[in-house]
Amino acid sequence: MLRPNPNYEKLKDSFLFYETKLRANDWQEAHPETRLLKLGIGDVTLPLAPAVIEALHKAVDEQARAESFHGYMPELGTAFMKRAAAANYARLGVTLEPDEIFVSSGIGEELGAVGSLFARENRVAVVEPAYPAYVDTNLMEGRTVVPIPGTEENGFLPLPFPGLEAELVYLCSPNNPTGAAYSREGLRRWVDWANEHGAVILFDAAYEAFITEPDVPHSIYELDGAKNCAIEWSSLSKSAGFTGTRLGYTAVPKALVRAGKSLHAMWVRNRSTCTNGVSYILQRAGEAALSEEGLRQSRANLAVYQKNAQLLTAALDACGLRYVGGKNAPYVWCRCPDGMGSWSFFDLLLDRAGVMGTPGVGFGACGEGWFRFSCFGRPEDCAEAAERLKALLKD
Amino acid sequence: MLRPNPNYEKLKDSFLFYETKLRANDWQEAHPETRLLKLGIGDVTLPLAPAVIEALHKAVDEQARAESFHGYMPELGTAFMKRAAAANYARLGVTLEPDEIFVSSGIGEELGAVGSLFARENRVAVVEPAYPAYVDTNLMEGRTVVPIPGTEENGFLPLPFPGLEAELVYLCSPNNPTGAAYSREGLRRWVDWANEHGAVILFDAAYEAFITEPDVPHSIYELDGAKNCAIEWSSLSKSAGFTGTRLGYTAVPKALVRAGKSLHAMWVRNRSTCTNGVSYILQRAGEAALSEEGLRQSRANLAVYQKNAQLLTAALDACGLRYVGGKNAPYVWCRCPDGMGSWSFFDLLLDRAGVMGTPGVGFGACGEGWFRFSCFGRPEDCAEAAERLKALLKD
Repeated sequence: MLRPNPNYEKLKDSFLFYETKLRANDWQEAHPETRLLKLGIGDVTLPLAPAVIEALHKAVDEQARAESFHGYMPELGTAFMKRAAAANYARLGVTLEPDEIFVSSGIGEELGAVGSLFARENRVAVVEPAYPAYVDTNLMEGRTVVPIPGTEENGFLPLPFPGLEAELVYLCSPNNPTGAAYSREGLRRWVDWANEHGAVILFDAAYEAFITEPDVPHSIYELDGAKNCAIEWSSLSKSAGFTGTRLGYTAVPKALVRAGKSLHAMWVRNRSTCTNGVSYILQRAGEAALSEEGLRQSRANLAVYQKNAQLLTAALDACGLRYVGGKNAPYVWCRCPDGMGSWSFFDLLLDRAGVMGTPGVGFGACGEGWFRFSCFGRPEDCAEAAERLKALLKD
Repeated sequence: MLRPNPNYEKLKDSFLFYETKLRANDWQEAHPETRLLKLGIGDVTLPLAPAVIEALHKAVDEQARAESFHGYMPELGTAFMKRAAAANYARLGVTLEPDEIFVSSGIGEELGAVGSLFARENRVAVVEPAYPAYVDTNLMEGRTVVPIPGTEENGFLPLPFPGLEAELVYLCSPNNPTGAAYSREGLRRWVDWANEHGAVILFDAAYEAFITEPDVPHSIYELDGAKNCAIEWSSLSKSAGFTGTRLGYTAVPKALVRAGKSLHAMWVRNRSTCTNGVSYILQRAGEAALSEEGLRQSRANLAVYQKNAQLLTAALDACGLRYVGGKNAPYVWCRCPDGMGSWSFFDLLLDRAGVMGTPGVGFGACGEGWFRFSCFGRPEDCAEAAERLKALLKD
């Protein structure tokens, strides 16, 4: 008799976004006269850049004719897309060879896949609050997960500490859900710790395009020694609006060696075996998104989201609520008022203001009493939400 | 110190297609006056159907405007694409609910991912010769793989036998690389065996669109009881020319329960955690490919590939070489002449005829002495290859 994977028993039901949507829909049904303002989901709302649209149409036309038709793509990514990603790294002052970069369908798809590189006994530290899949993909594989709690005291940017025992560490900076971002000095501490302990950092750089402060690294490879200890995930989802289009890339440097094994060579073997390459059409879109023109056009969209964050943080300031984020990321992470729990504040905001956010406790136990606002919504919704927040919470 | 996954040590270097390409390139360089005819790679050459191209352009245009823009897709697939896949099953007389179907980026991406559902101790039987990733993805996870050899005696369609001890079985019918296809009775034997033993069949249906014989099932679910024991992978790669565009779907029926656990529910959890959904643009392309118009247009391409197979098998007949396949699949699997090994025949064909195929031994030990011809090439190449084969091998 086949035995199902017993580790799935350890997973909690992933009900966060399901439950928030359910409650929000119920509310909207009961209040048809008020428009629900959705600041809950971290999904973009502005369209793809014209340069990307043009590249997509062109690639589609190529697929319509035998002379220009493309079959199987190289499993590790096309040369043109890897070059575009390497050029984007070069803009940050980071030198990576194109074949240290692997084209992906996005970070969501890489989180579980990368686990194949590591023996099951490795212990996994996750800086929390965090995107739930960091934990869940490891639980599925039977690994032990050690949460490292972010708190108001450490600015939601915890550092390695004596006695931290783990061989893998997940870092996301700028962070989802808190919007907090490590300074150069903070990341330096993690890189040094990983190299001293022979650990590996899995660095999620999905929000790097939102960084405005000069002391915040866009890539972990801006730090010396990071190529010896870190895998970095990049994505066009948030920077170029690709959440529903799908394209990203993963850097596994050749210098990343553990127990005499090249993790780069292992990842080459993994991708060659477990994928058949990313869609040609989407890789052309990715190349266009990373062109000078594409980047310039996308920046106009990012500015809209950043303006949203400013409106929201101004409202929280007016209400006297404490928060982090909003500066280098499209998320604002705010303390629930009057000692309220995350879900109570969710219900209060929904019931009394028709504003939907996300309960912080959904991102880890240390998120209890906190709340995430996403600034990816339409500007008019964000402005209206800011007004409703002030009307409800300003005394 | 982090420990890399030790199971990667068990993988052989995956050099099959790398080595054939290397030798072919060397030959072409040494013989610039003769055109190399590539019958080696199972990749399509004809363009996407007009209905698919139109759907792609339309979806791209939607992504260009905020009013019609699509962000994150549902992780399990869009309702429209699941409906299209369910309707395609209905054409085969198979009833599946849309939510028993999961939209994927293709079968290559699903092979490794599905392993997460099963405990590591399950033993894996692979009907060989086979696509190498069936074996490799399981070796990576530390599973024991039991090859079930296909032979000329069993028509490369082995059946379950007394003493077969395995909890998972990989079947591909019509088969890559042999082109052999199970009859209804053959598949019935596997389904009954799996249900008796509580095993699970992983059924690769990538080539079903090429079936011409009425007694060959297109889907394992045409057999009673298959929903209780089988997961089926479908793909548009070969049927609609999507190898470089990427779209497929995976059926995990709700009736598939082992040790009290619903594998359907586990796969829902897995996909929700390990993916962020397949590109909207590509799902619209998939929907169009499965429309009546898209299917009709693709059939014209399939007829070209089938004609290629007829040309090739006629040449093998003329040369007196034994073979299987070519009838229900775009592959012809032929016995190397004069007791030659697979690689010797590869070299002979390349050196003396400028024809590139694939050595059968690359698909498992039982493939030694056999050779795969792919019929996905251009008709003029296939016709020319047939002539060169006859000139070389007909006595």
